[in-house]
Amino acid sequence: MFAIEGVGAIDDTSDLVEVFLAALDAQGEEIHDHDVVAVTSKVVAKSEGRVVPFDGTEEAKIALVESESRRVLRRRGPLRITETHHGFICANAGIDLSNTADGTAVLLPVDPDRSARRFRADLRRQRGVDVGVVVTDTFGRVWRQGVTDVAIGAAGLRPIHDLRGSTDANGRILEATEVAVIDEIAGAVNLVLAKNAGTPFAIVRGLDDHFFGEGSIADNVVRRAHDDLFR
Amino acid sequence: MFAIEGVGAIDDTSDLVEVFLAALDAQGEEIHDHDVVAVTSKVVAKSEGRVVPFDGTEEAKIALVESESRRVLRRRGPLRITETHHGFICANAGIDLSNTADGTAVLLPVDPDRSARRFRADLRRQRGVDVGVVVTDTFGRVWRQGVTDVAIGAAGLRPIHDLRGSTDANGRILEATEVAVIDEIAGAVNLVLAKNAGTPFAIVRGLDDHFFGEGSIADNVVRRAHDDLFR
Repeated sequence: MFAIEGVGAIDDTSDLVEVFLAALDAQGEEIHDHDVVAVTSKVVAKSEGRVVPFDGTEEAKIALVESESRRVLRRRGPLRITETHHGFICANAGIDLSNTADGTAVLLPVDPDRSARRFRADLRRQRGVDVGVVVTDTFGRVWRQGVTDVAIGAAGLRPIHDLRGSTDANGRILEATEVAVIDEIAGAVNLVLAKNAGTPFAIVRGLDDHFFGEGSIADNVVRRAHDDLFR
Repeated sequence: MFAIEGVGAIDDTSDLVEVFLAALDAQGEEIHDHDVVAVTSKVVAKSEGRVVPFDGTEEAKIALVESESRRVLRRRGPLRITETHHGFICANAGIDLSNTADGTAVLLPVDPDRSARRFRADLRRQRGVDVGVVVTDTFGRVWRQGVTDVAIGAAGLRPIHDLRGSTDANGRILEATEVAVIDEIAGAVNLVLAKNAGTPFAIVRGLDDHFFGEGSIADNVVRRAHDDLFR
């Protein structure tokens, strides 16, 4: 697992895969089949033009958050916990107000799974490699302090590993154990991505073949309302 | 990051550090200063005798879960989401009904931070190394499908990295960004611990010095009720 350094500013004129490959090459690294490329949602969003004017006031923040949400779950002061149009439940609709150019805010990508699929297809076209791609963002947790990185988009990866039906070490059938490996990958990557050092890309190498396949965050990870005890 | 293989069955006659060191030595590996040793809560609990009779009935399950809880947050059929005596909020009070000897269930350790501190002190005594220790368990998430491993005990590690007050790439003060690196480590470790292969130990190597220091899960990660919007 290692970060790709030396990536410059990204905007809506940037080709994200070209930027990634240039930095990869400059670092003297190569990309291989069954590597996973992790990319932060912020640079994906910037490359897709998801940057909006933002004057820094509380009113503007709340209006922006609510316009990016399909529902507000909780309000505390200026903080909103909302369900975004994607179905993500997070603080302030995942809108990024830090590390952005003055007077702007960065929204989430419209469809992060699609962004991941496009990145993966472009990489295959340009380098002939079959990789997994994960788009990461930083979410809080309900009952634990601190934020962690999770996956908001993925391509070429099986987000959940279903151990149901496997037998345990005593030969009995395991209880429901669907492991969200995609979020464990996203969190792991954050250990090497220094938050403020301009490194939006990392590569994870050495994952077993069964990590790779079909799946998306929208289909496999976002919990449906009818399964949800806390919405 | 690698698993320590070939660990046999653990019970309340096992010295967990001796078991770990025997398996480490058998694998031809060494332990170094500023390694992190991850150990699953189940073997910690077993070594501490936290195994109780369990006849497999729904009634017994519910009674056991409620006795290990200070409060029940949600009920759905036999499922309980509760707050344990530690303050963890999770399904079924974290009690493990799989991968246990027939007719038994494994409770959480009474004080997983203390278990981690003891493991760390024993390792220092036996090998003279200054390591971090994290006790991991598998929890569900409210709004995302699938479970991930998180830290329920820690020693020698700073669970949360506080980036507040840091400046971002544009020189502005970052908003509140307390990163729960301890849970990112726990989740990462789960990528190498095959669930049903009897490998309760892993070593994480190469973390920066600032990951190490004072802290505990109870003090730094468990969210206090007054901060909690969803309890």
